[in-house]
Amino acid sequence: MPSPSNPATSPVLKDDLDIVIPTMRDLDFLEKWRPFFQPYHLIIVQDGDPAKKINIPEGFDYVLYNRNDINRILGPKSVSISFRDSSCRCFGYLMSKKKYVYTIDDDCFVASDPSGQKINAVEQHINNLLSPSTPFFFNTLYDPYRDGADFVRGYPFSLREGAPTAVSHGLWLNIPDYDSPTRLVKPHERNTRYVDAVLTVPKGSLFSMSGMNLAFNRELIGPAMYFGSFGEGQSIGRYEDMWAGWCVKVICDHMGYGVKTGLPYVWHSKASNPFANLKNEYQGIYFQEEMIPFFESVRFPKEYTTIEQCYTELSKQVHEKLGKVDPYYAKLADSMATWIEAWVELNPTSI
Amino acid sequence: MPSPSNPATSPVLKDDLDIVIPTMRDLDFLEKWRPFFQPYHLIIVQDGDPAKKINIPEGFDYVLYNRNDINRILGPKSVSISFRDSSCRCFGYLMSKKKYVYTIDDDCFVASDPSGQKINAVEQHINNLLSPSTPFFFNTLYDPYRDGADFVRGYPFSLREGAPTAVSHGLWLNIPDYDSPTRLVKPHERNTRYVDAVLTVPKGSLFSMSGMNLAFNRELIGPAMYFGSFGEGQSIGRYEDMWAGWCVKVICDHMGYGVKTGLPYVWHSKASNPFANLKNEYQGIYFQEEMIPFFESVRFPKEYTTIEQCYTELSKQVHEKLGKVDPYYAKLADSMATWIEAWVELNPTSI
Repeated sequence: MPSPSNPATSPVLKDDLDIVIPTMRDLDFLEKWRPFFQPYHLIIVQDGDPAKKINIPEGFDYVLYNRNDINRILGPKSVSISFRDSSCRCFGYLMSKKKYVYTIDDDCFVASDPSGQKINAVEQHINNLLSPSTPFFFNTLYDPYRDGADFVRGYPFSLREGAPTAVSHGLWLNIPDYDSPTRLVKPHERNTRYVDAVLTVPKGSLFSMSGMNLAFNRELIGPAMYFGSFGEGQSIGRYEDMWAGWCVKVICDHMGYGVKTGLPYVWHSKASNPFANLKNEYQGIYFQEEMIPFFESVRFPKEYTTIEQCYTELSKQVHEKLGKVDPYYAKLADSMATWIEAWVELNPTSI
Repeated sequence: MPSPSNPATSPVLKDDLDIVIPTMRDLDFLEKWRPFFQPYHLIIVQDGDPAKKINIPEGFDYVLYNRNDINRILGPKSVSISFRDSSCRCFGYLMSKKKYVYTIDDDCFVASDPSGQKINAVEQHINNLLSPSTPFFFNTLYDPYRDGADFVRGYPFSLREGAPTAVSHGLWLNIPDYDSPTRLVKPHERNTRYVDAVLTVPKGSLFSMSGMNLAFNRELIGPAMYFGSFGEGQSIGRYEDMWAGWCVKVICDHMGYGVKTGLPYVWHSKASNPFANLKNEYQGIYFQEEMIPFFESVRFPKEYTTIEQCYTELSKQVHEKLGKVDPYYAKLADSMATWIEAWVELNPTSI
């Protein structure tokens, strides 16, 4: 990984990346991120009671949106931004006009690599997004574009230019992103293993995309990065980032874009309450067994070349195929359609 | 990883695993492996002039086969075992009667992990083979069965039992397994990155399987582990392990078996001559652009439930589809058919 002190190999992209943070509380965690986040513009999306005042440490360049702002800006389309879950970050994706977005949860702190060096998560995500992906053939030495690595023998030469990278999914030291049953069974498990790798999730494979530490190329995939309606008043919770990940992955597979996972790590400080989570998740745990085969079966017409086309088609397929499983999906499909309308309205030239 | 000193968590399987070593020279490298290899039976397959005497350090339990033995045992079917490349190791797979095989090149030595501890490659391969794989959904925290790891949120519960593991593909520190063009361009590149991970190559993805440091479940996949005819007198070389890997992977995908890659590392001491390799490889570099789309298109009838059925069918498809590209493939397809006949003859109850 390039050193932050070497500008030649350290693309800062400070005018091309927004950091989107959903929160319900004072953002003291930003103090820890100051050396890495301060050059960037922050988009803070306040969940919960808009009357509550959130403290933000001085010296950051930010804009803060609360529910009143969302309602005012989106009008009737604001129903697509759900409440009391982490989905409200999507509003930040809508409002950003930058090429890249990094989103992070406010319980994630700066991790250290095995040498004790603090990890600049933004820089690693940028490196991941600026170098190609390898979705069409698995490279056993991981990211072939990294210093000291390359394509191994047997890797087809015609594929060595790689594919544009749409998503960089980072990981977590300390508290891993487990579901509530796993947390209930293993309350004390901590992730202490630093795996020094970035790799591309192969074409045709689904994965779990956590929203805690996630960057993406908004120009390539922004309109599909919708975290759905899994918040207050819905029968299913804690699936917002998973849902987005499956939507994004099937669309990336169609478009020939890559999705990377691995470095950078952040330090995830606290697990949410597994008892409360179980209540939110349990319906999803059933539903998921239907969702995965559905996403595995999704195909788009060859002539679809925009994210908007694919996403609109996906919302129709959700309505038609998953709507039979539970009426909840019909509502979700409607939210997806509304989201795309909102995206087009606020980003008329992007898609 | 379990410690070698803890028998409860350290499955030795000394009566269930053979170590297969193809060679043309004295096996002094075994001295370095003595603490790890001595408990096992070695099958040494001598390539080149059978009159040459090969020295093997004392104290190892081994059998040595040379070309005369191969001809005597296989008769006319010995044409399937090629010469002057690493494919002769396949004869060891045929002769083994064990459940597991580990094969290693004689220029691979014991590597150390970042803490300086010598890596017991056999033990790690056994761990990989004894624990399930996850080919149907990508787990972002890598091997979920490893101590300190698990399935992440969003991983379908119905898939958490995993799939039987057929192959464990280990990696190399020092000299990476590059093709000759890459070596010519980067003669001094060394692999110094220890990535502390084992992962499953997802279903539907092809990868480069190197034969240098490779273990497999012979009962599950042995008949497909054929390194082809890429040796003396053939128009294409240095593709024997790659070819085997693609055959194995498409058959594992059909059978629902897993292929793992990652740990353990060995220390690969010397690169073969990139100028000589280029001569052997160059035809393959062209051919490969036909091979990969071919393997991507391979499908087997649903009712095929044995490796023999799949492999016989594969040899027919190679003849029919790749035979058009070059007559070399027709010969290769014939060798594949002969190999399967030899396997059935020597292992009548295994398939």
